[in-house]
Amino acid sequence: MSTKITGKQQVEDLLNKYDNFLFDCDGVIWLDNALLPYVIETLQMLRSHGKQLIFVTNNSTKSRDDYVDKFAKFGLTILKKEVFGSAYASAIYAKNIIKLPTEKKIWIMGGKGLEVEFNEAGYQTLGGSSMPELDKELDLSDSNDPINKIDPAVGAVVVGLDTHMNYHRLAVTLQYLRNPEVVYIATNIDATYPANGIILPGAGSVVDSASSCSQRTPVSCGKPSKGMMDAIVEAHGIDKSRSIMVGDRLNTDMKFGSSNGLDTLLVLTGIETEEAMRALDQSSQPTYYAAKLGDLFELHH
Amino acid sequence: MSTKITGKQQVEDLLNKYDNFLFDCDGVIWLDNALLPYVIETLQMLRSHGKQLIFVTNNSTKSRDDYVDKFAKFGLTILKKEVFGSAYASAIYAKNIIKLPTEKKIWIMGGKGLEVEFNEAGYQTLGGSSMPELDKELDLSDSNDPINKIDPAVGAVVVGLDTHMNYHRLAVTLQYLRNPEVVYIATNIDATYPANGIILPGAGSVVDSASSCSQRTPVSCGKPSKGMMDAIVEAHGIDKSRSIMVGDRLNTDMKFGSSNGLDTLLVLTGIETEEAMRALDQSSQPTYYAAKLGDLFELHH
Repeated sequence: MSTKITGKQQVEDLLNKYDNFLFDCDGVIWLDNALLPYVIETLQMLRSHGKQLIFVTNNSTKSRDDYVDKFAKFGLTILKKEVFGSAYASAIYAKNIIKLPTEKKIWIMGGKGLEVEFNEAGYQTLGGSSMPELDKELDLSDSNDPINKIDPAVGAVVVGLDTHMNYHRLAVTLQYLRNPEVVYIATNIDATYPANGIILPGAGSVVDSASSCSQRTPVSCGKPSKGMMDAIVEAHGIDKSRSIMVGDRLNTDMKFGSSNGLDTLLVLTGIETEEAMRALDQSSQPTYYAAKLGDLFELHH
Repeated sequence: MSTKITGKQQVEDLLNKYDNFLFDCDGVIWLDNALLPYVIETLQMLRSHGKQLIFVTNNSTKSRDDYVDKFAKFGLTILKKEVFGSAYASAIYAKNIIKLPTEKKIWIMGGKGLEVEFNEAGYQTLGGSSMPELDKELDLSDSNDPINKIDPAVGAVVVGLDTHMNYHRLAVTLQYLRNPEVVYIATNIDATYPANGIILPGAGSVVDSASSCSQRTPVSCGKPSKGMMDAIVEAHGIDKSRSIMVGDRLNTDMKFGSSNGLDTLLVLTGIETEEAMRALDQSSQPTYYAAKLGDLFELHH
C-alpha cells in the first residue's frame, strides 16, 4: 500500500534510502507558469544532502537548453546533463540505439525542441517549423506543395506534441510513413496534458492520428518507455535500488519508475487525484505519495 | 470462393438474382474527378432492367444535394433519396435513433456536408466551417477563443474527415468530449482514401485523434456499420436477399454488405488489389469481383 508523506521521519527515511531523485517537471516542479510551493527549498535540501537530481520530461516541444532556461526563470539552476526530455531521448534513440546514419534526414511533426535535439545530434530535419507552407491548406495540384516533394533521404519520421499540427502536416507525414523503410518514432504517448486549468490534447493524440492513417505503431521514447531509463542509467551510472521517480501521472511517471525497477513518489499537484490512485489495485500504486513535492521541505524543516 | 465476372452469362445471373444494387461511389463510379469507363452505360442498363440503385458513401464532406450535383456533372441523373452519405446517416442517427432534441446544438469537426445535413435535420451546428477563428493558433489567454466559450447547449460532437482539422479544433473538440453527457458520433472510420494517385488520411485518423485525447469511443455511422444499413432498408424497403453491395474496399464496402446479410461485388478500380482480396480467408472474400463496374455493360453488350 502507498505510504503518504506526512511527517519529518518519513522525509528522513527518503533521504536515507535514495541517492538519486528523478523528477517529472510539469505538475511537480511547476504547473503551467507557476513554480509550485517550496520546490526551490526542497531541491536545495536534496542537493545539500548530496543527492543527484535528474529532470525527466515528456515535453518534446522544448530542448534541454530550453529546459535549463525555463528552470532559470524560476530561479532554479540546473545543468543541461541533468535534463532528459523526450525530444533528446528520441534523438539518442535514432543516433545510438538504431544507429541511423546522419546522412539520413528526419521528418518532424512536432515542436521546435525536436528540431534542436536532432540537429544537435547531427541530423538535418524537414517539416516542423521549417516549412510554414504546411500551415496553409493542402494543395495536391501545387507542385511546390511538400506532398509533391517527398525527399527520399528521409530515414525517420518523428511525431510529438505539435500545436501546429493540421491535416496538411498529417497528410505529408503519411507519405513518409507509407515507406516501411522509414523508421517511425514517437516522442511520447501522453493522451493529454494540463495547461492553465484546461486539459489539452497531448502528443499521444497527434501520434495516434499518424498511426491510424499509416497503420503503423511507433517506438515511443518518452516515459514510461524503457529506452529513456536506459539512457539515464547509462549517462549517470545510477543504482536503481537507490533511486526514486517523482511524478504526477500514474500511467507515465509512476509506471516509468515501477516498470523499470525504481521506487516511486506520486505528488498530487498535477493531473492525478488521491481517488484515482486508490482506485488502482495495490500492486500498481506508487511507493509513496504526497500532496506536493514541497512537503519534503516543509515537513523536514 | 469469389467468382470473377468475366462473361455475359455471369452478368445475366446478376440481373436475375438481384433487384437492388447498392454502390460505393469513389473508386467505383468515379476515381477523383474522372468518371470510370462504361459506368453511365452500366447504370442505364440496370435501370432499364428495373433495378433500384442506391449510392452509399462514407464521404461526409458532401451533403446528399452535393452528391446529386456531383453525379450530374458526370452526366448521371440520380435522386436525392438514392443517396446515403455518412453525413446524412449521422444526422439520422442523432435525430431518429438516439432522438437528440433539436434544441441541442452539434459541435462539428468535419466538412461542410455535415453542417448541411444536421441543419436540414433541424439542429444548429457549431465549429466546422462556421468558426474561421479555429484556423488560427489556439490562444488560451484570449477570452474570445472558442476554447473559452464552451456552449453548454451542445449535445453531440460529430467528427468526420476534415481537411481543416488542426490542433486548435482538436483542443476545443476535446473540451466538449470531456462531458460524458455529450454524445460522440463519427461519420466513418476509414483510415485513408485515395485522391489523385495519393493516399490521404481519412476520417478515421481525425476521429482517432479525438478518441485518443478524450479516451472515448464514438458510434460510427458509416460503412460498415449496421446503422447505415438499417436506414437504407427502412427508407427503401429492400429485400436484403435480393440486394448486392458493390464497392472497392474490403474492410468497409464488402464488410458492410456481408456483415449485414447482402451479397457483395468487389471492383478493382479503387483501393484494393486482387492480391489483397486473395490474401483473405475464403469466408471473408466478396461474392463476386470484377476489374471494373463497367464490365457489367461491356460483357453484357
